[in-house]
Amino acid sequence: MKKNIITISRQFGSGGRTIGRLVAQKLNIPFYDKELVEQIALESGFAPHYVEEHGEHAPGKTIFSYTFAAQGAHGSGMSAADFLWNIQCSTILQLADKGPCVIVGRNADYILKDRNDVFHAFIHAPMEHRAERIVRLYGESEKSPEVRLQEKDKRRKVNYHHYTGRSWGDASLYDISINTAAIDLEKAADIIVDLVK
Amino acid sequence: MKKNIITISRQFGSGGRTIGRLVAQKLNIPFYDKELVEQIALESGFAPHYVEEHGEHAPGKTIFSYTFAAQGAHGSGMSAADFLWNIQCSTILQLADKGPCVIVGRNADYILKDRNDVFHAFIHAPMEHRAERIVRLYGESEKSPEVRLQEKDKRRKVNYHHYTGRSWGDASLYDISINTAAIDLEKAADIIVDLVK
Repeated sequence: MKKNIITISRQFGSGGRTIGRLVAQKLNIPFYDKELVEQIALESGFAPHYVEEHGEHAPGKTIFSYTFAAQGAHGSGMSAADFLWNIQCSTILQLADKGPCVIVGRNADYILKDRNDVFHAFIHAPMEHRAERIVRLYGESEKSPEVRLQEKDKRRKVNYHHYTGRSWGDASLYDISINTAAIDLEKAADIIVDLVK
Repeated sequence: MKKNIITISRQFGSGGRTIGRLVAQKLNIPFYDKELVEQIALESGFAPHYVEEHGEHAPGKTIFSYTFAAQGAHGSGMSAADFLWNIQCSTILQLADKGPCVIVGRNADYILKDRNDVFHAFIHAPMEHRAERIVRLYGESEKSPEVRLQEKDKRRKVNYHHYTGRSWGDASLYDISINTAAIDLEKAADIIVDLVK
């Protein structure tokens, strides 16, 4: 079966988002990154400030009915993160229903795991490669790039396991995994485009 | 730096060995699979029966000196598996020194991790895909293919962690990881050849 939807999961600083954008451009299909998915999720009925205001407590039944049932929303005390996760799940499922696209981040690999028209890529690179890259792109900060990456990696790993029960970075979850220290971003995008064409 | 040596780590039944052979043919370089490495290791001074006879007890100092010092051979009670592992480590290091080649299995990814002229690939596929493949290639056996695969996977995971301290199947350990249920063997070989050329 032709795989028209591409999910890109990536280590922070590995260039996964850039690869996703290149793939979308080359295939001429929509590109949704983490921020865009978040925005669409929130705009689809819930303003960002709503989550902040109500996220710490469970919303009423009416709102539950819009959330992703399979995630087993708690009867009470849903955190802002859980609330956002739920509406992002349904948003990603809906985006995929609309047709071919590239989705970066937001655990889309897990959310779309049961569709057989989805190609899953994981983008990673060794710490030193990513450290050099984030300083070049985002500049220095108070924390060293290595500490920033360690914190991001840890948070992503915990978040992924919490919401999916799977191990972050497990090769067997993806159709292809690419180390961008060995394979440059343009080449990585070309490989993915070639595989889904 | 050009990567002339290719290690292929693979889940049993995923077609990794076939990909390795194809890559070696396409690049016209030597191909060493698990059995061949084992044979070379044993022939380089130790007959296979030697390991069986002496493997359960530590050999004398003279033999230690041939083994891979970094593995920290125990002062006593070295198992046959440890003994074989040690001589395979030194064998793989020597094979890599000889020049371009493809090495499948035997944790060569770990043993050659400090060389920067090595390209590391991991080949995997979902259980059902591998089950169908091993029955087609090796026929039925008393055990179901799923049970055979589960046993093999578990043994490989434990062995890999025991000797390397790393997690088997962690995408970040490889330059590329490929799911052969989504990408056929010939295509996978072409991707690797293209990347190392």
